[in-house]
Amino acid sequence: MVMMKSVVLVLLLQIYIVCTVRYQPNWDSLDTRPLPEWYDKSKIGIFLHWGVFSVPAFKGAWFWYEWKTQKDKDVVKFMEDNYPPDFTYADFASQFHATFYNPDQWADLFEASGAKYVVLVTKHHEGFTLWPSAASWNWNAYDVGPHKDLVGALADSIRNRTDIHFGVYHSLFEFYNPLYLQDVANKHKTQDFVRNKALPELYELVNRYKPDVVWSDGDWNENSTYWNSTEFLAWLFNDSPVKDTVVTNDRWGKDANCKHGSFWNCQDKFKPGKIFKHKWENCMTVDKKAWTHRRQIQIEDVLTIEELLAEIAETVSYGGNILINVGPTADGVIVPVFEERLRQMGQWLKVNGEAIYETQPWFEGTDNITFHGVWYTTKKQGNSTVVYGIVTMWPQDNRLLLGLPVTTATTRVTMIGVKEPLKWSLYKNIAMQIEFPLLPPNQMPCKWAWVIKMENLKNQ
Amino acid sequence: MVMMKSVVLVLLLQIYIVCTVRYQPNWDSLDTRPLPEWYDKSKIGIFLHWGVFSVPAFKGAWFWYEWKTQKDKDVVKFMEDNYPPDFTYADFASQFHATFYNPDQWADLFEASGAKYVVLVTKHHEGFTLWPSAASWNWNAYDVGPHKDLVGALADSIRNRTDIHFGVYHSLFEFYNPLYLQDVANKHKTQDFVRNKALPELYELVNRYKPDVVWSDGDWNENSTYWNSTEFLAWLFNDSPVKDTVVTNDRWGKDANCKHGSFWNCQDKFKPGKIFKHKWENCMTVDKKAWTHRRQIQIEDVLTIEELLAEIAETVSYGGNILINVGPTADGVIVPVFEERLRQMGQWLKVNGEAIYETQPWFEGTDNITFHGVWYTTKKQGNSTVVYGIVTMWPQDNRLLLGLPVTTATTRVTMIGVKEPLKWSLYKNIAMQIEFPLLPPNQMPCKWAWVIKMENLKNQ
Amino acid sequence: MVMMKSVVLVLLLQIYIVCTVRYQPNWDSLDTRPLPEWYDKSKIGIFLHWGVFSVPAFKGAWFWYEWKTQKDKDVVKFMEDNYPPDFTYADFASQFHATFYNPDQWADLFEASGAKYVVLVTKHHEGFTLWPSAASWNWNAYDVGPHKDLVGALADSIRNRTDIHFGVYHSLFEFYNPLYLQDVANKHKTQDFVRNKALPELYELVNRYKPDVVWSDGDWNENSTYWNSTEFLAWLFNDSPVKDTVVTNDRWGKDANCKHGSFWNCQDKFKPGKIFKHKWENCMTVDKKAWTHRRQIQIEDVLTIEELLAEIAETVSYGGNILINVGPTADGVIVPVFEERLRQMGQWLKVNGEAIYETQPWFEGTDNITFHGVWYTTKKQGNSTVVYGIVTMWPQDNRLLLGLPVTTATTRVTMIGVKEPLKWSLYKNIAMQIEFPLLPPNQMPCKWAWVIKMENLKNQ
Amino acid sequence: MVMMKSVVLVLLLQIYIVCTVRYQPNWDSLDTRPLPEWYDKSKIGIFLHWGVFSVPAFKGAWFWYEWKTQKDKDVVKFMEDNYPPDFTYADFASQFHATFYNPDQWADLFEASGAKYVVLVTKHHEGFTLWPSAASWNWNAYDVGPHKDLVGALADSIRNRTDIHFGVYHSLFEFYNPLYLQDVANKHKTQDFVRNKALPELYELVNRYKPDVVWSDGDWNENSTYWNSTEFLAWLFNDSPVKDTVVTNDRWGKDANCKHGSFWNCQDKFKPGKIFKHKWENCMTVDKKAWTHRRQIQIEDVLTIEELLAEIAETVSYGGNILINVGPTADGVIVPVFEERLRQMGQWLKVNGEAIYETQPWFEGTDNITFHGVWYTTKKQGNSTVVYGIVTMWPQDNRLLLGLPVTTATTRVTMIGVKEPLKWSLYKNIAMQIEFPLLPPNQMPCKWAWVIKMENLKNQ
Repeated sequence: MVMMKSVVLVLLLQIYIVCTVRYQPNWDSLDTRPLPEWYDKSKIGIFLHWGVFSVPAFKGAWFWYEWKTQKDKDVVKFMEDNYPPDFTYADFASQFHATFYNPDQWADLFEASGAKYVVLVTKHHEGFTLWPSAASWNWNAYDVGPHKDLVGALADSIRNRTDIHFGVYHSLFEFYNPLYLQDVANKHKTQDFVRNKALPELYELVNRYKPDVVWSDGDWNENSTYWNSTEFLAWLFNDSPVKDTVVTNDRWGKDANCKHGSFWNCQDKFKPGKIFKHKWENCMTVDKKAWTHRRQIQIEDVLTIEELLAEIAETVSYGGNILINVGPTADGVIVPVFEERLRQMGQWLKVNGEAIYETQPWFEGTDNITFHGVWYTTKKQGNSTVVYGIVTMWPQDNRLLLGLPVTTATTRVTMIGVKEPLKWSLYKNIAMQIEFPLLPPNQMPCKWAWVIKMENLKNQ
Repeated sequence: MVMMKSVVLVLLLQIYIVCTVRYQPNWDSLDTRPLPEWYDKSKIGIFLHWGVFSVPAFKGAWFWYEWKTQKDKDVVKFMEDNYPPDFTYADFASQFHATFYNPDQWADLFEASGAKYVVLVTKHHEGFTLWPSAASWNWNAYDVGPHKDLVGALADSIRNRTDIHFGVYHSLFEFYNPLYLQDVANKHKTQDFVRNKALPELYELVNRYKPDVVWSDGDWNENSTYWNSTEFLAWLFNDSPVKDTVVTNDRWGKDANCKHGSFWNCQDKFKPGKIFKHKWENCMTVDKKAWTHRRQIQIEDVLTIEELLAEIAETVSYGGNILINVGPTADGVIVPVFEERLRQMGQWLKVNGEAIYETQPWFEGTDNITFHGVWYTTKKQGNSTVVYGIVTMWPQDNRLLLGLPVTTATTRVTMIGVKEPLKWSLYKNIAMQIEFPLLPPNQMPCKWAWVIKMENLKNQ
Repeated sequence: MVMMKSVVLVLLLQIYIVCTVRYQPNWDSLDTRPLPEWYDKSKIGIFLHWGVFSVPAFKGAWFWYEWKTQKDKDVVKFMEDNYPPDFTYADFASQFHATFYNPDQWADLFEASGAKYVVLVTKHHEGFTLWPSAASWNWNAYDVGPHKDLVGALADSIRNRTDIHFGVYHSLFEFYNPLYLQDVANKHKTQDFVRNKALPELYELVNRYKPDVVWSDGDWNENSTYWNSTEFLAWLFNDSPVKDTVVTNDRWGKDANCKHGSFWNCQDKFKPGKIFKHKWENCMTVDKKAWTHRRQIQIEDVLTIEELLAEIAETVSYGGNILINVGPTADGVIVPVFEERLRQMGQWLKVNGEAIYETQPWFEGTDNITFHGVWYTTKKQGNSTVVYGIVTMWPQDNRLLLGLPVTTATTRVTMIGVKEPLKWSLYKNIAMQIEFPLLPPNQMPCKWAWVIKMENLKNQ
Repeated sequence: MVMMKSVVLVLLLQIYIVCTVRYQPNWDSLDTRPLPEWYDKSKIGIFLHWGVFSVPAFKGAWFWYEWKTQKDKDVVKFMEDNYPPDFTYADFASQFHATFYNPDQWADLFEASGAKYVVLVTKHHEGFTLWPSAASWNWNAYDVGPHKDLVGALADSIRNRTDIHFGVYHSLFEFYNPLYLQDVANKHKTQDFVRNKALPELYELVNRYKPDVVWSDGDWNENSTYWNSTEFLAWLFNDSPVKDTVVTNDRWGKDANCKHGSFWNCQDKFKPGKIFKHKWENCMTVDKKAWTHRRQIQIEDVLTIEELLAEIAETVSYGGNILINVGPTADGVIVPVFEERLRQMGQWLKVNGEAIYETQPWFEGTDNITFHGVWYTTKKQGNSTVVYGIVTMWPQDNRLLLGLPVTTATTRVTMIGVKEPLKWSLYKNIAMQIEFPLLPPNQMPCKWAWVIKMENLKNQ
């Protein structure tokens, strides 16, 4: 009876906390929010850069800026050669048709890739929204061109067909929005752009599409006070329909970058080169030269699957998530070479996913003994620790050296996908030397990158 | 000495009033502003409906609404027959090129037409601004299509080449602006549309182009309180760069229509049928079926010069101004049949302008005796009054009857452009009977509508 | 019985002649063919220049040549300003839509105009056929652009709704047809172009559309031997479905021009300045600057109705027919100002047509006495001759002088449309002086050009 | 002196033969022409399907026919969904821009692929020529769309940068050419299409671009007598600029298919399943579903490199050449996944090319003992014979069995790219059993398909 009472008390207390502890619109308060678990477990996301820039599909997402402000000579020549002199960037929008856009097909592909979340660019610096935003009338994919809610359609497909988390990229900054340019001219004493465009869009996105990721960008010229970021985030974490599951990145103002947010992107293609202090994400792209579809893409521009797996291994090994970008065409197609990479990744993860998902960083492998090109992760298995070594290059002499005194009598080493345990021995008493198996190609567990699994190691 | 003092006092008082008496943002105050003189003297203006609707150039300015809301079967069929299914109205904008837009040529034509002011549609209900408005980003003629400031170019040409007053039409209402639709859904408790779109545009227009006419439209569903009209007008009359010269119409809210404003339009093509209590304007169009260019226009749709002159005569005779609309093509061309009418009008006014410009209404001519199809104006000439009778149909038996006892011994009657005075006599002592001259066609002062000028009449 | 025999003999002879007298493919023989009567009686035809050039609608039908060969600076600039650098002339074709093409409406308009035949440009020097020609695959209005048989549709409408004769214009020459250029390079020793393009088209046109006029053009660089003209004409006059009714012009080779053919055009806008030895036709155009629709047309470029009637009067007076050109738009619209001219002409012909149709030339009016600006035609009326004087300018002092001793006691002079005969008298015994009536404008038979009809003149 | 005479005699005789032995225009004579050596040695060619069909890039090269004749419901829906109702196939041509066409880049890629000849589709059944053909005016890539001689540009790049042989594909048949349809309607009693279109094109192609392959197609409905094939081929072999080097396929009439020609294609994707009696070619395509670029292509439609290498091995092993098709985009781009396959193939051939180029078929491997998935070729090496076994699947137990008594004491077996010879032994005295090496992945000579080289075999 007494116990009953105290249980009730505890429950009431919890309810009280949930009901009353609200995040305040400042970084100190917002930073106290724990990272929703799903995000760290997921490790791998897909990033999709899609927009009006997909029509010229030349150079990349900064096409407009390179044309008009930087006067990049390739872009200027491309326009001169292919369009009448009075053609404007906005004129491209009516050629954005998304003819073959099949979000169900995309959802199935993303699932097959092994990714656990998707971040769609819903509005890039060009200001064109892929959903029918009231704040971007006649400059969105419903009013011009595709005549579709591209965001809503993908959100639905992903939710209906997969367990993947749906997220949205949104650029605060816009190259040429006159309201923004005016705020800048006013030295940011006005916030007309923020109030009339950026924030209304963010609220619409969250309320309408309930994203689990709000991936902000374009914050870099102003502080978060201009963007009203903390107010928005307080709402997002307190009152929004996704308050319990949503994660955000750190691009909410130049004062926030690499300092605040659920996870940190710091810069594009950021890799700390070591285990990082805070949850971070490496956003990178399969086309080495651009985030968007380019009509001129060549195979040498595309990451090989070996390169992509190495990137994944390094990122996860240092505690990051990886957000892998592929740029759809203006037709709404993910071109075959991107699909191939995603499916190769999925094929690899199907075998080796246990070394990626829900793991923790283990060891940075930077001594003089440890074989390089191997990335380590770890995971609790009951009471003991399992360590995975992701071997991105086959060791020269079929021997992997690991320079840590972690062996025990019962240490067991296997290659994932290979039945027989691997032989291992102590090397000069300072390292563990693991013998790699010689297998015919058709018995290899996978074609690129192999995972060594070590069980019954000494706990560290 | 005493007088001097009092004169100074009066002057100081006047200065004081000018400096301090400001119009208040309410109709009572605004209505006290005297009509700037130039407007009533001008009588004839040109109205130009130009916009994205000029691209389909089908049916008229309400094309979008007829297509999407009314589902007018002709418009729906036109779209089905000529465009792909996912074509949007906004997609038309990139086909608006204004290829041959030559505002100098327009200015010269308007001057030749005898018009004294021009009102350009700078934004119709479609919301597309013909100038690079910060409030209509990527939905204006600079960002999409023509890539030109169509408004500024015309304002400049008109000021540089003519004495014509430049004016702007602006629609408050927009068919499908999501901010407007949201305000409506909110039962006008919000004014987001007004604050973010309609008013910023009006301020831009006035500050940038300094129009002598601000011709408002699209006010009809809401009161002026929603539109913040009185605030805008108070600024316009107190502080704007055109505060001394600008005139406005009455379309500032359903409470204002035909009640407030410099001059009143009441409805489109409004004609009171008698001398009207307040300065009014008859806005009408040379194409009987539309305000905009239509690619299918036929000659039977076009007012003849006889019809146009009769319209002018009636309007001026009842105290109105006439605003004569011609719709340019998407190429920026005023088609020859419209140019022909404008030049015919100019040719007529060159001879007969004295019966139009700077005149006052005289007599409505509705007794049983007075010959119909004649419209009267009057003007002071020194101490005496001159009366003009604009005869739109040649009198059947070459005799014009005027049923008013206005003759004196010295009354002199002429036909403008004919040297010899006309014979006249009393008819049954109740009317004046004027003999029309039989002239060979090549000695006629004009081909259509002749003006009888009567001097030395009894003052009434 | 004898008579019967001789009748039979005569009939047989006639049958023999009809069956055996065939035109030979040489000019001597072809020239013996009598002109089918309908043509001389008709006097007035409508000419329609329509084609791919109607898309740019800039300068005229030689746009392509001016652009590429002459490098006319206006045309070059127009292309540079409005099209991407790699745009080709053929690319215009897909923008030729004939969206509003309504051949029934055209037929009704032509009938209302008073014209008795129509000549449609079915292929101009650009080589693009307005009908689905087997000799011009994918370069015709059925395969590209309008997706319609523009020729067949008009032929049908004209035949179904009017008594107007349908005719076809066809250019032998093509600016850039590679077969033609090769024949030229071969110094016309080859005729590949003629055999594969020009002649097959002509046969198709005649067999399929049964035109009453075959109006040839583009012959000027070669002799008729190159064009195989006499062979074609022999077939046309002997065996074609229109052998009894068809007429042709003289543009069948530089040896034929102004020498052979049913009627002669000699040059464009040809007017002999006197009564001409052979039936001729004045082909001219309502737009003084072009044969085709121009988007930049201005009213000063358009013939006034007065100018057009004077042109008609002079042409008919000197024995010619007049072929009046109007250029439809790429939309298939005859613009209102052209429609206005055609309807004004029809209105005039409705009153005065008897002075035009089925008349003969009478007198050239070139003495020192006869009032100028008057053009004479004549006609048999029973046994006597009627003479018409078409007065294009009202005579200065209302008196028309005719310096020919043609009066008799019973000579009767009227103005068509005016009941009362006109007074006339001998002037110095050397001329007839006719008094013009002074009528109020509303009793004038017409507004422009008046016809004096003289009956019971001396036969000359 | 006598000797001198006889030498002269011999020379004269040779001259006589060369001058007088000419192929006659019949199959018996044409079939006597020896196959130019380069072709059999080359083994691997690249096939390029490019044309107007690359604009819709939907389904494939028969798009037009599927749309208009078969009324394929996918194609019909695609057109209804994306184009206005009056859109024609020819209208696509103006959207064919070849914006990024870089024939130097293509040439370099083809060289890197290891291919020895290239066959470009210069005109497919749509009739549109990729060169400025005089026989296809305004329906070719110079007059419409790209405004370039696509054929000449590639011919030049290939000759300037590589040793690859340049060839042309040309379709005799055209779906909708009216001349062809008329010949068919005339039951082939006329040959207007052949004389005016098909043959002039072939002569142009050969004279202008001097192709080493004339790859004919579209012959199937008619005999070679209709196509005048033997006349053309007699000229090609006797008098054309490529008479000594050119090869042709067998598609010159339904009587010729799989019977006459330098090499035989028989059907598309033809594989005889055994060593074939006559030189043949397997034309196939990397996209399993189409010969042309498809905007909707997915990775599952694309041959894997393993599949492609197996196809090559089988084809060469049975005496064929393989012509590997990739369809460029309307932009002129070979998409990355195709480039990847070609470069993977080049990488493989760089190692294993000696087993492909200049080889002969050896043994079909169809007994019960020989390991399947291995394809054999052979080559003289001095006096002895070398045999290659291309192993497309790694043998299950690392043992390859070859059921032929071909071993000698000195037989030496190696894997190309591996230094150490392989162990082999006799298996039950009826077969040779070769031990495959177990190598770490990074020491494998290649990733897919390995070549066993056997030297000092018994001569067979």
